[in-house]
Amino acid sequence: MNFSIDTDVLLNNLLISQKALSTKTPAPYLQGIKMEVYQNELVLITSNSDIAIKIVIKDESLNIETTGEALIPGRVFVDFIRKLDKGQVDISVVDNNVLRIHSHNTDLSLNLQNVDDYPEINFVTSELPIKLESKIMKSVIRQTTFATSNIENRPILTGVNIKVDGNKLIAIATDSFRLSQKVIEIPSNFENMNVVIPGKSLDELIKILELDLEEILVHLNHKTILFEYGNILFQSRLLEGNFPETTRLIPTDFPIIIKFKTNDLSVAIERASLLSTKDNLNSIVKLFLKPDNVVEITSNSPEIGKVVEEVYPIEKAIGTPLKIAFSSKYFLDALKTFTSEEVYVKFTGEIRPFVIEGNEDAGLVQLILPVRTE
Amino acid sequence: MNFSIDTDVLLNNLLISQKALSTKTPAPYLQGIKMEVYQNELVLITSNSDIAIKIVIKDESLNIETTGEALIPGRVFVDFIRKLDKGQVDISVVDNNVLRIHSHNTDLSLNLQNVDDYPEINFVTSELPIKLESKIMKSVIRQTTFATSNIENRPILTGVNIKVDGNKLIAIATDSFRLSQKVIEIPSNFENMNVVIPGKSLDELIKILELDLEEILVHLNHKTILFEYGNILFQSRLLEGNFPETTRLIPTDFPIIIKFKTNDLSVAIERASLLSTKDNLNSIVKLFLKPDNVVEITSNSPEIGKVVEEVYPIEKAIGTPLKIAFSSKYFLDALKTFTSEEVYVKFTGEIRPFVIEGNEDAGLVQLILPVRTE
Repeated sequence: MNFSIDTDVLLNNLLISQKALSTKTPAPYLQGIKMEVYQNELVLITSNSDIAIKIVIKDESLNIETTGEALIPGRVFVDFIRKLDKGQVDISVVDNNVLRIHSHNTDLSLNLQNVDDYPEINFVTSELPIKLESKIMKSVIRQTTFATSNIENRPILTGVNIKVDGNKLIAIATDSFRLSQKVIEIPSNFENMNVVIPGKSLDELIKILELDLEEILVHLNHKTILFEYGNILFQSRLLEGNFPETTRLIPTDFPIIIKFKTNDLSVAIERASLLSTKDNLNSIVKLFLKPDNVVEITSNSPEIGKVVEEVYPIEKAIGTPLKIAFSSKYFLDALKTFTSEEVYVKFTGEIRPFVIEGNEDAGLVQLILPVRTE
Repeated sequence: MNFSIDTDVLLNNLLISQKALSTKTPAPYLQGIKMEVYQNELVLITSNSDIAIKIVIKDESLNIETTGEALIPGRVFVDFIRKLDKGQVDISVVDNNVLRIHSHNTDLSLNLQNVDDYPEINFVTSELPIKLESKIMKSVIRQTTFATSNIENRPILTGVNIKVDGNKLIAIATDSFRLSQKVIEIPSNFENMNVVIPGKSLDELIKILELDLEEILVHLNHKTILFEYGNILFQSRLLEGNFPETTRLIPTDFPIIIKFKTNDLSVAIERASLLSTKDNLNSIVKLFLKPDNVVEITSNSPEIGKVVEEVYPIEKAIGTPLKIAFSSKYFLDALKTFTSEEVYVKFTGEIRPFVIEGNEDAGLVQLILPVRTE
């Protein structure tokens, strides 16, 4: 194997590849990048226990002398390419087990791992992938993944539930204290599906979507989901088990509705949350809809002090006075998912889940469970 | 005590104040900001075991109703002011032990600490302070402090030695494996002095010098050093004990001198250092001045591989071929202190300390001890 390529082109692809590199693993080959050099393309493969990435590079700077394959220590290779001066870099295998990297006055020899140790990875495409705008895919991930559980005692809740149901794609995440649901419309020619993708996989995928290509293809299978994004194939395992049926958890009838400027509400809750101790989850704030239509957000810590924030709803609120308490972190997390400048907070009662929606965020519902206080 | 002030003015001063706040301390009053309100000025005092900061605020937005003083929980107060909307903020003491902060629709009540618990801090000025350009003070700190020891077994080496000797101010730091010395000229009308300032204090001072005021006054005393920077007094304790006499450690006669482009040398050593394990200090690189005037920087790790970098000196090197090995981290740290685009690396022998100097960095010497290899 012997080829040369523009350093920046190689680096940009390696930076994507390395998102699937294992840093700590009992299987040292998973710390490696598998490089396959064909007649007219260079392929980079990386994988860990959750995801696998395959990148096919066809670039005009790519100049292939001889084909071949190699398993390269990932971290040190990427770090080194990152530090090279601009220009062409020559890469070849010498003495069968050494990778030689040469550029300008720099010469690196890297001991190779045995490429035969690398597992065969199938990147499973489907015949009829779902085509989505990348920016829609990005918002679906951003608006749901944060609400997954990071506690492993109910593993299924560490994932995002993706359902295809007729002409709807529904994404749901919940840690059982809050729930995020995003529904988008898709053409109705797909099989119905119901899978759960690890939240961690989606956290990596969204970083790759920064490339701002227009479209992404989603290949759904029974064991894996494969995202095809330009020359990148990003495959994730699926979580096994039944995701809880959440449709009935979201109330549909709201006797109390308050419309806020998103920003007014967010800064008020942020300030009120400052009184808490280090543990943000325990920072409970109270919302009080007063008969005069002013909303008070308050927080009280006997040791530190007390905050009272007045927020003025945009319109006269619908419904009776209300007092409700909730985690400021959950509320702020939920608010951040909206692009709408105005949001509706909709209540069914003081100890019942409430939801947040925004006019400019069609299909998005954030649900939060209140906490009981004295 | 009752006054109002522009939120941004208060915040900018608090952000400086808080650099002397203790976060963990057995003395809770050191987590507080002492606020003193006089007829026409607001004073903020903070201190920890190393440094004390006093800021005197006279601003046109400052509107004082009644004078007084208070000891305010530091962290939560600063965080809160940071989150306030722009505009005027009203601050007053109510019920004797509660601080009330009011701005727009926000109301915070903070439980106060007992101001009588706060120790009396003397900010000791001298009659004849040394006046320096702030940017010179900044470079003296930046060019020396990094070389202090962070191991506490020889406490004196955790500080920077500042000497006033006739018309010279000399700053020296060493961890006994490397040494940094910067000499600047000052008027010759000061008493000779020899003090050691904790490196940590200087790390905080340099952050404050970001304000870019032109001058700084240095008040040297026997127990403390006080920097006067605009409306800020920054005082540090001094380290007790004798700083080692280092003048004779710096060689003056160099049979081998190589002149490099600073950047060429720095990228070559950076790349060579990538082969090391996580522990940077152990990343030893070798420099080989070959008879053909090419310099090879190499690094070798039996498990990972090998790097060979060729660097071309700017001129024919003075002296015989040389092989020397050193910590890449120490070399890179030292190189970063130079603004010169070209540096001289000067050797006396393969196992003797070597120095780095640059034409555009008058008074700056970086010395490094080589390591022995097989």
